Amino acid sequence: MEKQKIYNFSAGPAVLAVDVLKQAAEATVNYNGHGMSILEMSHRSVPIVDMVTETRQLIRQLLNVPENYKILFLQGGASLQFSMIPMNILKDDETADYTDTGAWSAKAIKEAHRYGNVNVVCSSKEAVYNHIPKQFEQSKNQLYLHLTSNNTIYGTQWHEFPDTKGFLVADMSSDIFSRPIDVSPFGVIYAGAQKNMGPAGVTMVIVREDLIGRSERNLPSMLDFAMHADKDSMFNTPPIFAIYVVNRTLHWLNELGGVDAMYEQNKSKAKLLYEEIERNTLFTSPIAEEDRSLMNVPFVFADGGDEAHFLNYCAERGMVTLKGHRSVGGFRASIYNAMPKEGVEALVNAMQQYL
Amino acid sequence: MEKQKIYNFSAGPAVLAVDVLKQAAEATVNYNGHGMSILEMSHRSVPIVDMVTETRQLIRQLLNVPENYKILFLQGGASLQFSMIPMNILKDDETADYTDTGAWSAKAIKEAHRYGNVNVVCSSKEAVYNHIPKQFEQSKNQLYLHLTSNNTIYGTQWHEFPDTKGFLVADMSSDIFSRPIDVSPFGVIYAGAQKNMGPAGVTMVIVREDLIGRSERNLPSMLDFAMHADKDSMFNTPPIFAIYVVNRTLHWLNELGGVDAMYEQNKSKAKLLYEEIERNTLFTSPIAEEDRSLMNVPFVFADGGDEAHFLNYCAERGMVTLKGHRSVGGFRASIYNAMPKEGVEALVNAMQQYL
Repeated sequence: MEKQKIYNFSAGPAVLAVDVLKQAAEATVNYNGHGMSILEMSHRSVPIVDMVTETRQLIRQLLNVPENYKILFLQGGASLQFSMIPMNILKDDETADYTDTGAWSAKAIKEAHRYGNVNVVCSSKEAVYNHIPKQFEQSKNQLYLHLTSNNTIYGTQWHEFPDTKGFLVADMSSDIFSRPIDVSPFGVIYAGAQKNMGPAGVTMVIVREDLIGRSERNLPSMLDFAMHADKDSMFNTPPIFAIYVVNRTLHWLNELGGVDAMYEQNKSKAKLLYEEIERNTLFTSPIAEEDRSLMNVPFVFADGGDEAHFLNYCAERGMVTLKGHRSVGGFRASIYNAMPKEGVEALVNAMQQYL
Repeated sequence: MEKQKIYNFSAGPAVLAVDVLKQAAEATVNYNGHGMSILEMSHRSVPIVDMVTETRQLIRQLLNVPENYKILFLQGGASLQFSMIPMNILKDDETADYTDTGAWSAKAIKEAHRYGNVNVVCSSKEAVYNHIPKQFEQSKNQLYLHLTSNNTIYGTQWHEFPDTKGFLVADMSSDIFSRPIDVSPFGVIYAGAQKNMGPAGVTMVIVREDLIGRSERNLPSMLDFAMHADKDSMFNTPPIFAIYVVNRTLHWLNELGGVDAMYEQNKSKAKLLYEEIERNTLFTSPIAEEDRSLMNVPFVFADGGDEAHFLNYCAERGMVTLKGHRSVGGFRASIYNAMPKEGVEALVNAMQQYL
C-alpha cells in the first residue's frame, strides 16, 4: 500500500485510525461475512440495526450521556444544525445568546438569526479570533448560550465552559471525543463526524429530551428532531457506511481507554508541538496561550519566510496538508485523536532541522 | 471472500457492481496512491474536487443533461427534497400538482403541503397502488406536476411521462440511470443514490437554472439550491465517499454502454422474471401489466402458500432479501442495474423447481 508513511495534518476530513480504515474497507466488500457489502444492506436489516444501536450505546458510554438525552444520527453536517437547532427549540419571542469565536461560530449566528432573538454576547473577531472572550454579559432572559467548543480554523478551544442561566448548546465538531465532558449543562451537543469520529456524511446530535418539539413549529419531517428521535434515526435511509466508520472509531477509542486516556495523549501531543513553537525562534503562535487548542495548532514564521518552501520540506518527509487556513496564513497542524504521537514527533523534528 | 455467490434482491440500499465495491474498498485504504484514505482527504483538495467535477460530467453525459441545468450533490435523501423542492421553487400563491402512486409519492405530498397550494390530481391508493393512473385533470394554473417515476414498494413505473402545461418534477430514486430519459420536460429530477447509483448518504438533484431562487424565500443556507449551486455542492463538507462510489458506478455504467445498453439489459432481465410469473401457476403479479416496473418486481402466491418456506428455499440457494414490503406481502425482487442476469436466472430456476 504505502512507500512512505504519510502523516495527514488535514483539518477535516482528517486522519482516521489505520485499523478502522482496514475494517471499513473489508465491510465495503463483505460485511461481517454476510456475503454483501455494507453499502448494499438494508438499513432495516438486523445486522445494520444492531450496528447502529451499538454505535449509540458506545457514544452514551464514552461520553457518559445521561438517560434523558437522545442520540441522533443526521445528515447535513453541523451546517444544517446551525438552522435545525434554533428551528426546533427556540420560539419566536425567546432569546438565545451566541458567542462569536471563529468562522463556524459566525456561520451558526448567521443561520440562527432567522429564529427568535439572537444576541451575540461576545466576539474576538477584531483580534482575528486569536483568543476566547472571558468577560461578557449574557441576556437575562436567555434560553441557551451557543458556543463552538474548538475553533478549527483559528486554533482556540474553550478549556472551561461558561456558566449560564439557561443551558449550553455546543458545536463540538472538531473536539468531540478528545476530552471528557460533563454533558449535563448542555441542551444540545452536535458534531459533524469528519474530524474525530469518521468520514463526512453523518452528524451526531445529542439532545435533551425535553427540548425535542419545544418550539412547536410545523417543521419538515427531515428537520424535526421529534421525527428522528421517534424513529431512532431511521425515519429515512441513514448514511450507514459513515455510521459504521464511527462505530469502528469508537471501538478503537474504547480499546485505547476511552476519552480520559485519549485526553492524556492529546495533551501530551499538543505539549510537544507547542513547546517546539515556543522554543524555536523560527516559529511563533498567533494564539493566546491559555486558549490554545489541543486539536488544531496554527503557527507562523516569526520573522517571515518562504511558507511554500517549508510546506514542501515537510511534504518530502511525508507530512502533508500543513498549510494554514487562508484567513490566518502560515501553517496549521491538526492533531486529532487518530494522529499518532510519531506524527507530531516527525513534525517537531522537521521544525528543528529546518534551515 | 465468499463461499457462495449471494444475489441480493434488496429494494435499497441495494446491490452494487462487484468491481465498484472493490474500488471503493481500495480507496478506503489508499486513494489513488495518495497514501491516504479517501475518508481522510479534504473536500477542497485537488484530487477530490476533480473527482466530484468528473462525477457531475459523467451524469451530464450519461443522461444528456442540457447546459441550463445544474447538477447538485446534497444530503438528506429524497425525503429532504420533498420539502426543499417546493420550498425553493413554489411561491405561496402558486399551485403544484402531485400524483399519488405509492408510499413515496404520498410522503412527497405530505411535505409539500407546507408550501403553496398542493393539488393531488390522481391516486391509485384505493387499488393498493397496483397501477399508474392514466386519466386525470391537471390544474389550469399549475407550476409543476410531481411524480415518482418508479414506485419501489408497489412495483409500478411511469413508462411514459404525462404532458403538462408547467414542467415535471420527478423523484427518480429507484430508476435513475436504468433507462434513457429526455430531461427537458423536467424542472427538477432528484434521486437518493442508494438504489441505482451508490450507497445511502448522497442525493443527486438536477435542477433547471431558472428555478434556482425562484420562490424568493429566505431559506437556511443548507436548504437553498442557490447556495449549493453557487458553491458547486461544496458549501459545506459533502459526503465524498458516497460521491466516489457514484463516480465508480457511473464509470461502470459508461463502460457497459451507458443507459441505452442498460435499458436493454433491464428489459431483458425483467422479461425473464415476468414471463415466469405469468407461466408459473404458483405465482401471480398483483400489478397492472402495462405499468409493471423494470426495477422492482412484486409477486405473490396465486393460491396462498407458506411464504417463509419459499424465502428460506431461496436463501439456501443464495438469493436473499426477497420478502415483499409489509404493505403488499408476498415477494419482491429488486433487479436494479447492478443485478446480474444470472441472479434473475437463478431466481427463475428456483421458482420453476419449487415444490
